[in-house]
Amino acid sequence: MTCLGIDPGLASTGWGVVVREETRLRALGWGAIVTPADWETGRRLAFLRSELEALIGRYRPLACGVETLSFRKNVSSALPVAQARGVVLLTLYERAIAVHELTPGQVKKAVVGLSRAEKAQVAAMVCLLLNLGTRPSPDHAADALAMAYAALVYGEACRVP
Amino acid sequence: MTCLGIDPGLASTGWGVVVREETRLRALGWGAIVTPADWETGRRLAFLRSELEALIGRYRPLACGVETLSFRKNVSSALPVAQARGVVLLTLYERAIAVHELTPGQVKKAVVGLSRAEKAQVAAMVCLLLNLGTRPSPDHAADALAMAYAALVYGEACRVP
Repeated sequence: MTCLGIDPGLASTGWGVVVREETRLRALGWGAIVTPADWETGRRLAFLRSELEALIGRYRPLACGVETLSFRKNVSSALPVAQARGVVLLTLYERAIAVHELTPGQVKKAVVGLSRAEKAQVAAMVCLLLNLGTRPSPDHAADALAMAYAALVYGEACRVP
Repeated sequence: MTCLGIDPGLASTGWGVVVREETRLRALGWGAIVTPADWETGRRLAFLRSELEALIGRYRPLACGVETLSFRKNVSSALPVAQARGVVLLTLYERAIAVHELTPGQVKKAVVGLSRAEKAQVAAMVCLLLNLGTRPSPDHAADALAMAYAALVYGEACRVP
């Protein structure tokens, strides 16, 4: 079972891929899809879509964790994020990838055990749970790995160790 | 010159098509793309995309007017709208249709002559300018016709009568 996690953004979309191999979980890859600020929005969204399709082709995930929309963080950045999220959900649907929409609290609960964990705790636990030597960079990629992990946890009825 | 106007929404996306024929402007069509509330978001966005592609195939517009993102109206509905808007901008970009992003004030200014016109004034002027016997329905379609009209006005350096 291979699971993708996506942290959408117009400027930078974090992604992470986690696979279950018998009793252990392993990170297959992570990174960010970055689009130039001087491109028109449609071009940035088209680039995001084509890069996401390439990731899907490479890793063949069956499911994807995506955080629910929230105004809690930065209101001014929420609308561009939502535009990118729309393109992500469209692409996942067209590729028949099951979407697990997770609240930030659900992601933290799955990874750290506490729904109000700090961002740094989440990143540290991602390293530990996935046996990564160093913290994934950029932050969006660490967040995306946490979402992929959480989607595996919730998608498989908490059978994760 | 055929121009599309789109008023994006996850539940209902208004559309309108206006063509310039020598000295007059004519509405070729208008309507709304409506998606069932019980469909998952990805499916609703995929349906919006395929319906929009069908409209583009039918009318072959060269340009499209789309309102800028704004928090001023209803904050809770802004995020789903932005998701739909992302899919609209992606689709227009992929079909090489020039996007004119217009503020609500620019649309009102183009149609009514006042940037603070009421919604009902805009709809009434759309009827008058495009020689429509009755007010276009639903409201999203009237808004979209106003955007198509405004995109023609601004896109052609105010050569509209």
